[in-house]
Amino acid sequence: MLSKNKIKLIQSLNRKKDRDESGLFLVEGNKMVEEALRSEYQIETLVCTSQFADQHPEIRLKAKEIIETDKDSLQKASLLQNPQEALAIIIQPEIETPELNLNAELCLALDFIQDPGNLGTILRIADWFGITTVICSENTVDVFNPKVVQASMGAIFRIKTGYINLESFLSKASKSQIPVYGTFMDGNNIYTESLTRNGIVILGNEGNGISDSISRLVNRRIAIPTFSTNPNKAESLNVAIAASICCSEFRRR
Amino acid sequence: MLSKNKIKLIQSLNRKKDRDESGLFLVEGNKMVEEALRSEYQIETLVCTSQFADQHPEIRLKAKEIIETDKDSLQKASLLQNPQEALAIIIQPEIETPELNLNAELCLALDFIQDPGNLGTILRIADWFGITTVICSENTVDVFNPKVVQASMGAIFRIKTGYINLESFLSKASKSQIPVYGTFMDGNNIYTESLTRNGIVILGNEGNGISDSISRLVNRRIAIPTFSTNPNKAESLNVAIAASICCSEFRRR
Repeated sequence: MLSKNKIKLIQSLNRKKDRDESGLFLVEGNKMVEEALRSEYQIETLVCTSQFADQHPEIRLKAKEIIETDKDSLQKASLLQNPQEALAIIIQPEIETPELNLNAELCLALDFIQDPGNLGTILRIADWFGITTVICSENTVDVFNPKVVQASMGAIFRIKTGYINLESFLSKASKSQIPVYGTFMDGNNIYTESLTRNGIVILGNEGNGISDSISRLVNRRIAIPTFSTNPNKAESLNVAIAASICCSEFRRR
Repeated sequence: MLSKNKIKLIQSLNRKKDRDESGLFLVEGNKMVEEALRSEYQIETLVCTSQFADQHPEIRLKAKEIIETDKDSLQKASLLQNPQEALAIIIQPEIETPELNLNAELCLALDFIQDPGNLGTILRIADWFGITTVICSENTVDVFNPKVVQASMGAIFRIKTGYINLESFLSKASKSQIPVYGTFMDGNNIYTESLTRNGIVILGNEGNGISDSISRLVNRRIAIPTFSTNPNKAESLNVAIAASICCSEFRRR
């Protein structure tokens, strides 16, 4: 039985303020809940149909509280149009500044990414390309926003994230001779530039690109060239698309 | 003055049935309307603020009807949360089967793409990479869906599209020795495969990938390899992300 209070709690997790206060976040859908069950994350409450419960005996070990209910009640609680058979309220892990060995490792740094769908997609891309850490500027959208979580398709459980002062982080990196990449219209062609196996790739805001204060800390300016021959030519790539092309170029050999 | 009937017409363009009947589609936002003004498309009605009208004298030549109104009325008519200062009702061009020289040209073929955001993003990617034709299966989402139009960021005005029987189109191409590429988990590594400058790249449905009947017509099976080392590893890339990596690989040299 799903109480009114529980429904209220679930829906409150759509708001950052309420997520911050409760220290919880929401995961919806069978696949996403299965990912949560396989992860190290702690499940506070699992709400599911009895069929889902039967098919996933491991929930007894993993979830503190299990509420079996019918699809109609799930629909009432859900933030999704098609809530499927399960949702989970999960305890936010302590986000510490991830430990990085930037002499060997490649990471992404996000400068004011605003759209939750973009952040989720970027996490999914990082996951695919074996990039384990995504650093976020303090004004980047909250990684526990339900739209980020859903768009990440489970990558949220595998990628390390941290919200930090990007300027001071990059400033330190740059002083230590770590390659700091950023994409700019007038950067060097990413297809011909020799790319290192380590360093930081900055992805900028959807409307404005990389901010001025961050641009100054980029020591390797790159560009994804267009192949359009149209006079009214293509003007930009979406940030997640740019991220995928960058990750692909850094990883391919 | 924006009449109730006009508001009704604008909002009806959110429905495929009404778009088909009227032969019209909707474009919203300053940038998108500017793209429409630069294009060959015929503008039936332009609704804008007087400020927008003053800044764009060319609208007198391009739009059959101009309705100047205030932001509140625009908001009432708009399908967007932030309608900005202009929207345009545009006449759908005759969509003919695009003429293609597949011995020289590369095109994309979409097999049952359902999400309008994905289709719009794929058009934007094609535009960036100088791919001028995107063939759609008959069950792919309508290119004049307002969400497709907005996500395309103007690419809709530059890319040729056509809805055709994909199976018979590919069957003919395959018989003429045209390379027909499709991505599969067990395909050849796209990073090491030698890719032709011409041919067809098929992108499959969001949930199910390329359908069986279409798979049989693929003569070059490729794969985008994952670099994830995680045991619960990344399972898939979004179709638009896969499209961007494919286009990037075909165009880079």
